[in-house]
Amino acid sequence: MFAERGYRGTSLNAIAERVGLTRQGVLHYFRSKEQLLTTILQLRAELNRQNLGADRLESDWPELLAEVVAYDRKNPGLAVVHSVLAAESVTEGHPAQQYFRDYYQSVREDIFRVLTERYGDRLPSGLAPQTVAAALLAMLDGLQQQWLLDRELGDHPEITRDVLAMLLLGSAPR
Amino acid sequence: MFAERGYRGTSLNAIAERVGLTRQGVLHYFRSKEQLLTTILQLRAELNRQNLGADRLESDWPELLAEVVAYDRKNPGLAVVHSVLAAESVTEGHPAQQYFRDYYQSVREDIFRVLTERYGDRLPSGLAPQTVAAALLAMLDGLQQQWLLDRELGDHPEITRDVLAMLLLGSAPR
Repeated sequence: MFAERGYRGTSLNAIAERVGLTRQGVLHYFRSKEQLLTTILQLRAELNRQNLGADRLESDWPELLAEVVAYDRKNPGLAVVHSVLAAESVTEGHPAQQYFRDYYQSVREDIFRVLTERYGDRLPSGLAPQTVAAALLAMLDGLQQQWLLDRELGDHPEITRDVLAMLLLGSAPR
Repeated sequence: MFAERGYRGTSLNAIAERVGLTRQGVLHYFRSKEQLLTTILQLRAELNRQNLGADRLESDWPELLAEVVAYDRKNPGLAVVHSVLAAESVTEGHPAQQYFRDYYQSVREDIFRVLTERYGDRLPSGLAPQTVAAALLAMLDGLQQQWLLDRELGDHPEITRDVLAMLLLGSAPR
């Protein structure tokens, strides 16, 4: 329901009705709507850590990220919740604002660190690691935004692979 | 107020109060909250067309887009409204959903057309024009999302310039 209508557009009563519980029944499991939000975001982060384990970061990034995007497109549930809440979080006083501020900073730092360990201060493409860290994260978010509005767009895994190969290595796959 | 709290989080009464009018006073100028939304989106589109006139598209794209991003960062008003509403529009039954679906499609097509006219079916980088069209639009959206959560991020114009030079020409500026 958060994915469909956002956090602010979803009431605890509506959630209770959808799952066939009373409002008190939902509050038995989650102290508040905000705690339900936090739990969902932590679940998404935990599943991401499992999917993108440290070992996999040693592999071929363009192929790896293309796989991640293809997976999200086929299993949109938590990916859509994440995007919708991330976008909504920029509005005033949103309870997930600090979560997403920290999330973006830590993901940029993680990408930067892995790239720097592998390639040093300059990537083979000539770009700086911090440039690619911010741009890669931005591209994944932006493609998701386009896909949320048009689920027929099918080429995002290939776009991710080709663009990332270009940004890292300076060469386009044929 | 749409930028601060989203369309759904903003009532006509709150808008009226902020501008020192009654609700009826606001409705004298705009038939409905939805019409106010439409008017704002059209204003943003119109200003964009003026800023990015057809003549400017003939110039150096990496520099041009870096300027556009720098301009948006210094004059965030309408750029932030646009981003917040674009993100909110993916939720169910949102009145701007069709607007943004059409908007993304037409911007991708415009970029694709200009790139194809200038470079043909393959860019100097080796990437396909449709790949760069989707990726460029995505990167601009995603960087904006990062900046909305952390207004201290100051390097987005340079990131835009460097990444776009890479995607178009296959070479990183030094």
